[in-house]
Amino acid sequence: MTTIIKGNIIHAPELGRLDILPGGHLVLEDGVIQAISQALPKEYAGLPVTDYGDKLILQSFADCHLHGSQYPFLGTGMDVTLLDWLQKYAFPVEKRFADVNYARMVYRQLAEELIANGTTRVIMFSSLHADGTLVLMEELERAGISGYVGKVNMDRNGSDELHETTEESISETLRWLDHCGQFRSVKPILTPRFTPSCTDELMAWLGKTSRERDLYVHSHLSENDREIAWVHQLHPGCERYWETYAKFGLWKDHTVMAHCVYSDETERKAMREHNVMAVHCPDSNVNVRSGIAPVRRMLEEGNWVSLGSDIAGGAHLSMLEVMTCAIRSSKLKSTEDGTQPLNAAEAYYLGTTAGHRYFGAGKGFAIGDRLHAVVVDDSRLCSVGEMSLSDRLERALYRVSRQEIKAVYAEGKLVKCS
Amino acid sequence: MTTIIKGNIIHAPELGRLDILPGGHLVLEDGVIQAISQALPKEYAGLPVTDYGDKLILQSFADCHLHGSQYPFLGTGMDVTLLDWLQKYAFPVEKRFADVNYARMVYRQLAEELIANGTTRVIMFSSLHADGTLVLMEELERAGISGYVGKVNMDRNGSDELHETTEESISETLRWLDHCGQFRSVKPILTPRFTPSCTDELMAWLGKTSRERDLYVHSHLSENDREIAWVHQLHPGCERYWETYAKFGLWKDHTVMAHCVYSDETERKAMREHNVMAVHCPDSNVNVRSGIAPVRRMLEEGNWVSLGSDIAGGAHLSMLEVMTCAIRSSKLKSTEDGTQPLNAAEAYYLGTTAGHRYFGAGKGFAIGDRLHAVVVDDSRLCSVGEMSLSDRLERALYRVSRQEIKAVYAEGKLVKCS
Repeated sequence: MTTIIKGNIIHAPELGRLDILPGGHLVLEDGVIQAISQALPKEYAGLPVTDYGDKLILQSFADCHLHGSQYPFLGTGMDVTLLDWLQKYAFPVEKRFADVNYARMVYRQLAEELIANGTTRVIMFSSLHADGTLVLMEELERAGISGYVGKVNMDRNGSDELHETTEESISETLRWLDHCGQFRSVKPILTPRFTPSCTDELMAWLGKTSRERDLYVHSHLSENDREIAWVHQLHPGCERYWETYAKFGLWKDHTVMAHCVYSDETERKAMREHNVMAVHCPDSNVNVRSGIAPVRRMLEEGNWVSLGSDIAGGAHLSMLEVMTCAIRSSKLKSTEDGTQPLNAAEAYYLGTTAGHRYFGAGKGFAIGDRLHAVVVDDSRLCSVGEMSLSDRLERALYRVSRQEIKAVYAEGKLVKCS
Repeated sequence: MTTIIKGNIIHAPELGRLDILPGGHLVLEDGVIQAISQALPKEYAGLPVTDYGDKLILQSFADCHLHGSQYPFLGTGMDVTLLDWLQKYAFPVEKRFADVNYARMVYRQLAEELIANGTTRVIMFSSLHADGTLVLMEELERAGISGYVGKVNMDRNGSDELHETTEESISETLRWLDHCGQFRSVKPILTPRFTPSCTDELMAWLGKTSRERDLYVHSHLSENDREIAWVHQLHPGCERYWETYAKFGLWKDHTVMAHCVYSDETERKAMREHNVMAVHCPDSNVNVRSGIAPVRRMLEEGNWVSLGSDIAGGAHLSMLEVMTCAIRSSKLKSTEDGTQPLNAAEAYYLGTTAGHRYFGAGKGFAIGDRLHAVVVDDSRLCSVGEMSLSDRLERALYRVSRQEIKAVYAEGKLVKCS
């Protein structure tokens, strides 16, 4: 089946580079991009065109770090720092996901809100609960979202009410993995919460399982100073935080590490050497007072950096807002270390291409990829008059909300239209 | 005429204090608050009640510093710092307001968007143009917004295209003032752009006019290091920026000074001694890379601090978003100077009561004041289940957008209902 869509196409094949096609065409066969060009290629002449007129056709967004089980308290609990925040807010809510009906209700709403905001790919923590995690995967797939989702492992330093033994953690992880074959676009990812949450025995088992079953790994790294001190205490033999993952075989190609606020040169080098993706979560890092990650430096050094909402440490589910948070944070960082702030084109790349790459996608709207796109109607927004499309992209980052997102394509299919 | 409204009332009579009445009543006579109480006072029994059910009834918002003429480029131009930003973005757009038709179109849309976002009181820069300023005042009044609006004075250091002579500045200010009597809820305020924009002669005339006509003053103070150095150069006799206003009689009761990022103890003391209001513009200060104002310190010292969107240096027109920006900035400042970050109740106070005070309003919803309120439907937002009203207030700050604002009352009248 051939689908042709037309509109003002703006995509970001490289960091800092926008490819812009005013009134351009995207041609799909069964959802796979065949052509992207200003004029419609001759061989498709006469076929029906979905014409989005003056609207913007942007890449959809990849949210590379968020916690599904924290969605219920999104926008609250902003009064403490990370470790207290886990005990006071995150753990008490997460334990409720033992109830699959509660999980169903929350995750259905979350999936709907993600799609409405143009997020079509996610890398997500669920909770400790295998069944709840399967519910999350079902609801994401139902909404048309692709993703890597993890049952969280935590056999130490939880709370009285949120805890699993090492044996439970292993057997429940295995039971969860046994049921993941049913999903087409949502895949399992191994998810130790963070080093302080997992015994060496569990970490070693996760490393082995990751290797044997060819599974990726998702966790947290160097987010907060108290956390880092704690990790050093737990692993006195490891000079740096990343080594506590490496020593159990969890530091490898496509390992996802959220935050990296305090990752120094050595840790950043270890990321590059193993193709570990750093996920910058600028809103969360400000809200729970962790600090500001050295994003420009990581990019200059060649690190793979994408963006995450990190709800509910982050208060913005919309990746557009996360992108502008990244710009704001980079400006504050620039006064500290003299680096160049991110611009709109760069933030857009980080929230799209850099994250979609995790899923094997190419650069920008790439031929051979299934289409992941959002259609934005920015006509409501006040304008100077004639605005360039790159200015309209910048304005979209700062001003567009779900109301302006008129259509969403995920895996080549139209999954939302309003 | 008696109006009774019922809902979950949350107001902030003091910094850090929330008064909460679940299912409470507000009784108005001709828009003026007669009673605020949990149960409906007996003498009003039997009268019709507008029942907002489980919705929140919050104070509406006061935006104490914004630039009407910068609305057309809101959300763009985020790549430079203050002085370059003025030349590259602000001045070229501002000059277009010589055209009253353009001004009408832009200001009508701005007024609509302000009300839709629950902002019912403003202190606003217009442009250099007397006629455009009158259009802005008309459009605000038509939308139901109260405010102080100023024709901008700038007889030096503008651009080739945006400039006025001292004589023009004076005569156009007089002509503008002559036409301001027609407005009921929108009043003129004298508005030298900032010290570098005005000659001593113009500043002296503005000071004299302020005294003779009993007019308030609105300008910028200590926003950016290059700006401050420039002011020192222009006024070598003044040790601090504020003195350049004081020496011309512009530093006095109800003078509004935006930013105050670098106001030191002495400058802050001078504000307190003269009842000068500092307007904290957290989003703008990050976007144009000015810095972070020492808000907690100012509050501890007893300064009068309110909030401003400062569009288009700020990208958020919604004061709810400005409030959470203030919280975020205070957290970043806290790691620098050890001060306590703002909490949600405090940010709400700064965006409401602290600003409404400029207009003579009392504390929170105060008996004898005309009602300024917004009605928020937060039922769409995911919830833990039973949430306290103070948690719902915090969540509203972080998550409510215009779609959730179902009704707006300004000057005692229902001005928006959806």
